[in-house]
Amino acid sequence: MNSLKDCDKAWINVNLATMDGNDSDPCGIKYKQAIGIRNGHIACIEPMSKVTATCLPYKVFDAHNSWMTPGLIDCHTHLVYAGQRSQEFEQRLTGSSSKTIMRLGGGVMSTVRSTRVRSTAQLVKCSLPRLHSLCSEGVTTIEIKSGYGLGYRDELKVLKAIEQLQNHTQCRIVKTLLTTHLLPAEYAGRPERYIEMLCTELIPEVAQKKMAEAIDIYYEPHTFNLKQCQKVLESALENGLAIKGHMEHFGSTGGTSLVARMGGLSCDHLEYLDELGVRDMAEHGTVAVLLPGPFYILQRKHPPPVELLRQYKIPMAIATDLNPGSSPLASIRLMMNMSCVLFNLTPTEALSGVTRHAAKALGVHHKLGIIKQGYSADLCLWDIEHPAELSYQLGSSPLKQKIIGGEIIK
Amino acid sequence: MNSLKDCDKAWINVNLATMDGNDSDPCGIKYKQAIGIRNGHIACIEPMSKVTATCLPYKVFDAHNSWMTPGLIDCHTHLVYAGQRSQEFEQRLTGSSSKTIMRLGGGVMSTVRSTRVRSTAQLVKCSLPRLHSLCSEGVTTIEIKSGYGLGYRDELKVLKAIEQLQNHTQCRIVKTLLTTHLLPAEYAGRPERYIEMLCTELIPEVAQKKMAEAIDIYYEPHTFNLKQCQKVLESALENGLAIKGHMEHFGSTGGTSLVARMGGLSCDHLEYLDELGVRDMAEHGTVAVLLPGPFYILQRKHPPPVELLRQYKIPMAIATDLNPGSSPLASIRLMMNMSCVLFNLTPTEALSGVTRHAAKALGVHHKLGIIKQGYSADLCLWDIEHPAELSYQLGSSPLKQKIIGGEIIK
Repeated sequence: MNSLKDCDKAWINVNLATMDGNDSDPCGIKYKQAIGIRNGHIACIEPMSKVTATCLPYKVFDAHNSWMTPGLIDCHTHLVYAGQRSQEFEQRLTGSSSKTIMRLGGGVMSTVRSTRVRSTAQLVKCSLPRLHSLCSEGVTTIEIKSGYGLGYRDELKVLKAIEQLQNHTQCRIVKTLLTTHLLPAEYAGRPERYIEMLCTELIPEVAQKKMAEAIDIYYEPHTFNLKQCQKVLESALENGLAIKGHMEHFGSTGGTSLVARMGGLSCDHLEYLDELGVRDMAEHGTVAVLLPGPFYILQRKHPPPVELLRQYKIPMAIATDLNPGSSPLASIRLMMNMSCVLFNLTPTEALSGVTRHAAKALGVHHKLGIIKQGYSADLCLWDIEHPAELSYQLGSSPLKQKIIGGEIIK
Repeated sequence: MNSLKDCDKAWINVNLATMDGNDSDPCGIKYKQAIGIRNGHIACIEPMSKVTATCLPYKVFDAHNSWMTPGLIDCHTHLVYAGQRSQEFEQRLTGSSSKTIMRLGGGVMSTVRSTRVRSTAQLVKCSLPRLHSLCSEGVTTIEIKSGYGLGYRDELKVLKAIEQLQNHTQCRIVKTLLTTHLLPAEYAGRPERYIEMLCTELIPEVAQKKMAEAIDIYYEPHTFNLKQCQKVLESALENGLAIKGHMEHFGSTGGTSLVARMGGLSCDHLEYLDELGVRDMAEHGTVAVLLPGPFYILQRKHPPPVELLRQYKIPMAIATDLNPGSSPLASIRLMMNMSCVLFNLTPTEALSGVTRHAAKALGVHHKLGIIKQGYSADLCLWDIEHPAELSYQLGSSPLKQKIIGGEIIK
């Protein structure tokens, strides 16, 4: 253990929700601590009872018994897009069906059209407010998926925009290439040719240029079949990308088992996940990413099998799924609240879901998501009386300070 | 019509959602306008096509085709309280019943206890973040109810705190005395004595000292009967206070008809409102205040009869019901979204619900809630493409400017 004295800075009189606990104390609560940071990492955690004035470094912040948690992680967003679909939202509420909306030019293809006509710089500009909004709540790591470009050229453009967003924020951005959610119009009637393009052109280029860390497949049988999805996943693995998937969202498909058995980081949505899929996730250490946003907006009635996930001790992450159609909700704390209210998670599970388990969903759990010596100093300091408050009260933000890689951002 | 030239300031190139429309255009949309303000009031609205540079006043803001709406009005809050109940929220999610929580010292009485032990200044301090949160979203008028003091002395203290909050904000505060929701412990077994105290001591004093503009009664038969509630309402009217009520929240009680027939401003909640009640509201011009917050938090299944309210052309207002138990949600825009998603209102109805109709619920519709010559210049300027966006996208705030009584606040 390093000494506090040797740290770059330290917080004293802080209550820690380390999220590195055990079954009887999943929050890993440590009251009245001092925490020291060196070279961007957590160097030292000590109870205040052992801390004397002489053993403190030069820079000391008195937290006055505030709570510190790991920085929040939003592990599933589609944050880069152009346009907005509020009038479609209005049409749906006045009784138009999804089909009618699509016929009138709405739906996901309207976002694809808006995104395709924008330049990289324009995409960065219209995505920034959404990114800032999440960051202002305490998010320190965010995953952003491509997907509204479709096709080779436009998908690379969207990934480029995600890359450039990193120049505008200190929040860590994890980039994902989303595929197999839609067949681009230019491949109409030739899905095999599109899969071929993904496997031989797009995926190798993205991997080689490090434009994404992972690939995400969307598996609903009406778009691509399981074999085609498997081909894409195999190509991703061969090219050194991690894999994950949008799964079991509108029905039980078996996609989860495929992704889990191939070593997938996470399966996301999971409303119709069955026990076989849960067992495969347990066996392969795959994280369940639950997305209350679209469940709420679309007023779905069939929640994911939370009790089954608990039984098999599957880590449950929570994310915004931020997108212009089914989750125009740029708030991770609203999602924490909704995961409690709609999915019956406890506030502790919700907090684990946006820290420790979200880190695992992104494959960064060896350095992020918990408060522990050696981990990156990505931390939030909150003006709250109890960590449960983060999932309970919305509106006013209790975030006092945010630290990323040891730097105080707010 | 006054001339733009004579105004204190003006906005040009602004799209107006005046909320002063008709059945075919309830938003009362006017594209490309100039709006001038004088002495805190809207003095002049003209299409840009008629505006020349020479007819502008000294202070001109170019809105660049942004949208302007009336300032938002939150017409039902219980914003002044001490303590928080996140752990009770956690208990409920882990299976504790309301009864068990009450036995463990939780529930509304825990808020009453926390509130009673705080001074007026302390109540102001802990309520301010909630007030600021609503104001930062575009709220320019807010109703705040007392109610967590109970009894004579503590209820006056809470009203005093509401009064003092006005010193900390330019947002207009409308004060309401809430009664008959709980029997204070010191009146246990003597409900008649409590009603007597309300009618002969508290209400006359509150009215005389102008500590509230209205009285709100809570009618659920297990607490007080209809006759007792009527007595309180009569006392309020005799003392010159407006009346309104929390009604039909857990069952059909007939309270709405009582309040409407006595000339009530609004009836609020209304999940179990029946057609007779709706007819009485229509006849007496009573506003229906819908509260999606507690509906969501408590996961209620029986929404208010929106279709019936539409048929009878009852104005529907939307409010946060901000309180520490069933609606710890200090966000009027979240409520606009929830009124659409959970109650099937259209975004236009949601916007009317927090402007025009909310003003009527507070009896201030002769000066607030629409954009019209002679009305107070309480206005919001939004960076949006369409007013429906206000009910659709959450997280990042599109509020560009906020004006109260002609003063630019943000």
